[in-house]
Amino acid sequence: MMQTDNNTQHTNPIHRPLVQYILHLADTALILGHRNSEWCGHGPVLEQDIAISNIALDMVGQARMLYQYAAEIVNTTNVGTAATEDTLAYLRDATAFKNLLLAEQQNGDWAVTILRQFFCSTWQYYVYTQLAECKDARLTEIAAKALKEVTYHIKWSAEWVIRLGDGTEESHQRLVQALELLWPFTGEMFIPVAYEKEGIAEGWAAHIQSLQQPWLQKITEIFQEACITVPERQWQQTGGKTGIHTELLGFLLAEMQFLQRAYPDSEW
Amino acid sequence: MMQTDNNTQHTNPIHRPLVQYILHLADTALILGHRNSEWCGHGPVLEQDIAISNIALDMVGQARMLYQYAAEIVNTTNVGTAATEDTLAYLRDATAFKNLLLAEQQNGDWAVTILRQFFCSTWQYYVYTQLAECKDARLTEIAAKALKEVTYHIKWSAEWVIRLGDGTEESHQRLVQALELLWPFTGEMFIPVAYEKEGIAEGWAAHIQSLQQPWLQKITEIFQEACITVPERQWQQTGGKTGIHTELLGFLLAEMQFLQRAYPDSEW
Repeated sequence: MMQTDNNTQHTNPIHRPLVQYILHLADTALILGHRNSEWCGHGPVLEQDIAISNIALDMVGQARMLYQYAAEIVNTTNVGTAATEDTLAYLRDATAFKNLLLAEQQNGDWAVTILRQFFCSTWQYYVYTQLAECKDARLTEIAAKALKEVTYHIKWSAEWVIRLGDGTEESHQRLVQALELLWPFTGEMFIPVAYEKEGIAEGWAAHIQSLQQPWLQKITEIFQEACITVPERQWQQTGGKTGIHTELLGFLLAEMQFLQRAYPDSEW
Repeated sequence: MMQTDNNTQHTNPIHRPLVQYILHLADTALILGHRNSEWCGHGPVLEQDIAISNIALDMVGQARMLYQYAAEIVNTTNVGTAATEDTLAYLRDATAFKNLLLAEQQNGDWAVTILRQFFCSTWQYYVYTQLAECKDARLTEIAAKALKEVTYHIKWSAEWVIRLGDGTEESHQRLVQALELLWPFTGEMFIPVAYEKEGIAEGWAAHIQSLQQPWLQKITEIFQEACITVPERQWQQTGGKTGIHTELLGFLLAEMQFLQRAYPDSEW
């Protein structure tokens, strides 16, 4: 049965714009965190192996705070459901995930992983900076907490971008290839979808169009040190924020969700 | 509670030697079939893309016949369970799978896939030839039916082995590398585990020790045409037949079982 939605009332609370937005932030953090966790035990040197794993933990931690908040909203507005951080992370299928397409792209080599992190962390930095002063009290708390971590993630990944770009011919070339691969997935960061537009209007979502310029400025600054060039404007991929994903997400979820799917309701 | 097993009575019917043996044959066919199916849409030329997909279907078909038989035994001897081909394929975890380690190895390049198929198909050919005359009526039927397909799989993969080995320097080198990778997984084919020993004694399992010589002879014959050398005796991997797998199987199952795990009891 279809029911007419309006801005304040939605049939299933998980479809409320605020919940969708929280899930978009949470999914992006979780999926990127999972990708980073795939490096655990494979990093190029021990210290960096630990660094990327710690970043993964930070991102999963951010995702948890956001999922917990989303679950609370869903549960208080819908008698009979019992959403938890675990059900939201492990029991939704790919079309319900709202992460940036960039987050689900494969690790590739170290250059791809680093550049993906640098792009995402820089985006998160500006998003969380705005959210830390938004009209939703819980989001301001979560954003303020995450911001400390993200600030370090930018520093760490930017240093690696410079090291690779301004390193050997081989490392420079790999960074250039990583850039070609990932750039078409960056546009989505700054194109608001329906739930974001509502949130921007109501003051609980980051005004992402206004963040493109500072984001690009930060990228340009680091790229100059890394001796690589910001690409020209080009066609950009979109869809992740509304659940239309690359096939990569399905494989990632199959692996990430296996334990909870195979052993339902298991707990630590 | 531990209960003493003997040859005719086992607590859980899935642990009966005959069932374990059927699962070993079924799992090997299913897992190899799934690996081959990963090539669908990626084969080097259209005709071979279709060929490897058809072989995948043959193997899944063999697995189905075997799982159906295993399920019947389990169900008739254990009131309350309702095993089906689907529960056996999709709801067991890695440690319950009894496939040859060889079957779960990654596709790698075309040479690895081809050589893995050639090794497995040749093994299946001799196993099914013996089973077609064994004391278990259902196994003789299944083996006779599978044998026709496997005969073609050997022909197809052997031709490719020759084509790669006696081809360009590059293709020859790739086949040599594939051989180095896969050879340590071939020994397991001919080392009987407990349930096979019972079956050999009782006449419903292939006497695999006696199959090593004809298998090796067939391999040697094709390798001569392919201008590559059968490796010296060396240390061999074991464990797959008793549920001790490489980490690759867990990832494969996570993907293969996703649909049934995420949407339990769904049917076509």
